[in-house]
Amino acid sequence: MVKKSAKKNAFYAQSGGVTAVINASACGVIETARKNKGRIGKVYAGRNGIIGALTEDLIDTSKESARVIAALRHTPSGAFGSCRYKLKGLEENRAEYERLIEVFEAHNIGYFFYNGGGDSADTCLKISQLSKTLGYPIQAIHVPKTVDNDLPITDNCPGFGSVAKYVAVSIREAAFDVASMAKTSTKVFVMEVMGRHAGWIAAAGGLAAENEGDAPHIILFPEVVFNERAFLARVKESVNKYGYCAIVVSEGVRDSKGKFLAEAGGVDAFGHAQLGGVAPVVARMIQKKLGYKYHWAVADYLQRAARHIASKTDVEQAYAVGKAAVEMALAGKNSVMPAIKRTANKPYRWKIGEARLAKVANVEKMLPKNYISKDGFHITQRCRTYLQPLIQGEDYPPFKNGLPQYVKLKNVAVKKKLVKAFKVA
Amino acid sequence: MVKKSAKKNAFYAQSGGVTAVINASACGVIETARKNKGRIGKVYAGRNGIIGALTEDLIDTSKESARVIAALRHTPSGAFGSCRYKLKGLEENRAEYERLIEVFEAHNIGYFFYNGGGDSADTCLKISQLSKTLGYPIQAIHVPKTVDNDLPITDNCPGFGSVAKYVAVSIREAAFDVASMAKTSTKVFVMEVMGRHAGWIAAAGGLAAENEGDAPHIILFPEVVFNERAFLARVKESVNKYGYCAIVVSEGVRDSKGKFLAEAGGVDAFGHAQLGGVAPVVARMIQKKLGYKYHWAVADYLQRAARHIASKTDVEQAYAVGKAAVEMALAGKNSVMPAIKRTANKPYRWKIGEARLAKVANVEKMLPKNYISKDGFHITQRCRTYLQPLIQGEDYPPFKNGLPQYVKLKNVAVKKKLVKAFKVA
Repeated sequence: MVKKSAKKNAFYAQSGGVTAVINASACGVIETARKNKGRIGKVYAGRNGIIGALTEDLIDTSKESARVIAALRHTPSGAFGSCRYKLKGLEENRAEYERLIEVFEAHNIGYFFYNGGGDSADTCLKISQLSKTLGYPIQAIHVPKTVDNDLPITDNCPGFGSVAKYVAVSIREAAFDVASMAKTSTKVFVMEVMGRHAGWIAAAGGLAAENEGDAPHIILFPEVVFNERAFLARVKESVNKYGYCAIVVSEGVRDSKGKFLAEAGGVDAFGHAQLGGVAPVVARMIQKKLGYKYHWAVADYLQRAARHIASKTDVEQAYAVGKAAVEMALAGKNSVMPAIKRTANKPYRWKIGEARLAKVANVEKMLPKNYISKDGFHITQRCRTYLQPLIQGEDYPPFKNGLPQYVKLKNVAVKKKLVKAFKVA
Repeated sequence: MVKKSAKKNAFYAQSGGVTAVINASACGVIETARKNKGRIGKVYAGRNGIIGALTEDLIDTSKESARVIAALRHTPSGAFGSCRYKLKGLEENRAEYERLIEVFEAHNIGYFFYNGGGDSADTCLKISQLSKTLGYPIQAIHVPKTVDNDLPITDNCPGFGSVAKYVAVSIREAAFDVASMAKTSTKVFVMEVMGRHAGWIAAAGGLAAENEGDAPHIILFPEVVFNERAFLARVKESVNKYGYCAIVVSEGVRDSKGKFLAEAGGVDAFGHAQLGGVAPVVARMIQKKLGYKYHWAVADYLQRAARHIASKTDVEQAYAVGKAAVEMALAGKNSVMPAIKRTANKPYRWKIGEARLAKVANVEKMLPKNYISKDGFHITQRCRTYLQPLIQGEDYPPFKNGLPQYVKLKNVAVKKKLVKAFKVA
């Protein structure tokens, strides 16, 4: 028997933009911790991510029933709240790290699970060094998540597969609609998708085009400088050949001067430009130059929240990385991230491996050049081979009254132990 | 035995904006006609709607296998092509009616099935009067379809229930996303939905709000004059109370001068303004006046094409009206439309009744006043009772490689018999 006092509690937090399956990772963390009650104490979740740790606003997940925790697997969004907040370096803001240690110490926290993307991996890395830098013993494990699919080493990022599926399904459906109307009405449809720097999500739209003539006919990637002339020529060609043209455009498309086609202005907490609205820009350009009637859609949050059409593969992987994170912690690991390793393509097989956080943090995995066709307007077979398994399988949530039944947690606060409040910058 | 020559062929066409389930009606028409081969000949579909009749561009549906016709039930869009083309009155354009008779006569067509909304019902009515006005014996039956849900007499319009479900599911999912991010990021989410004159689709978003605090917090209806001050106060109240605000806005919202909040300009073939882009207008207004970070989505065609999340009730009703139309024709009826009759609410029960086309054509069923809450920002319980059954049940299409398998028809043309071509205006 392990002595009760020696048993450390765990801290878990969700960071950055949420996804359709980040709660499946939370489910994997909590269920696995519960299965190892002899060795791991309570799982405290940060309310609104790392801010919950800084402000000692912890959620006691042990107050939630097994049924409710299981329902996290089919619930989109971040059940404990997420945040866009990046810890500065130790030298720049030592107070934040000292505060974290205070909170961790007060609540006997020895495991730190951080569920996020590249910026969050950097935060997790800094936490993992606390024993070295500030003498507080903690094991920090990063749980990968990001719809942007831009983390290195791992085969893909949980959250991405479901957005990919949503985008491919949606452009296929909308294109069927346009094809029926094209004779006398709409000839061009433009669908805007997320992806600031990397065209992973836009590329996923390409999966819908399985046969000659299938939509989308054009994909605009952030990796390819927008060339209005070549683009319009391609639109015209598609309308002449197929009667219509369906386009997937990434929010991050730029012109030859490096300027975003859509400038919504504003910058988020990580210093990234906040975009939106390139679809109407592109659609109106087509109308003006070619005279075609158009429609456009901006999926925005719908794409990353669409748990109803989540990829089964994605849900399974999201759960698996959560589970593996706890197992790594129990195996004494620190400063690592469970990474998905692809072992076969057809049928797709994968297992969970391990990545050093130092090799993950602040490294962006871009869409390889050979994933984009030579003309810059579509994906290659190589890209298709990579992407296809990630949207495989459906994993419908339960429905009642015609609506998906997503769970809302009680999110009971842990009693504060510290006298001092902490003001988040 | 009925003599072969006495057996009349049928003409079927899809009209106006397509839906996720209009092909289910086509399936109902064709399968029922096939079951009555002794009494009804071939079903010829108009390529691109009524234009196919005018130009003698008919599709021989008998060239499609039973398996393919069955797959229409789960395929969104208009499989034979649709069009936005309204026949003028007999006095204004007698040539068009004479041409239709020529084509019908050449192809031994005695049944006319027209699958559309209010404008199309008017066309169908005019066709149904051809025996009286021009001496050509034909039975014209209208098959109801419109996402706008604005046809009178019928309980609802096939196509609407699936859009309603898509909108309710989507705002629920996106709101879960926003709720998790609201502490440090997006506080307001605006989702734009279709509905030129009637707020039926916007109202359907309200179904997602089952409990206090649930999204959407605000619905903007075309029926309610936009009041910026009251609206902004409500947004602020929602953010203060729940931490965020999720809004469904109809494309048809107007200000006190009757001007659309979003003016995309342009007019479609029926003379209706072509709208789009009210969501960014509303979102930026909030940002400017209240300073909240926002996101917005415009679902556009995605909403009416989303067969993957179609309402099972809607699919069943779409099939049933198609089937009933053929049965009515076989019963010797003319100038009628199968109408859905609600016989009970809980559980929802319905049957197919009959509506006189003269009472359907050009009558718009508006959202009743008592379906909108007194403050103008949400739906009433009465509205909920009406809408709820229409989104009931799921009817997932088959998937392969992670994508829905929708059918594309061969659409083999019927050999032309007329020498003269006809130029559509």
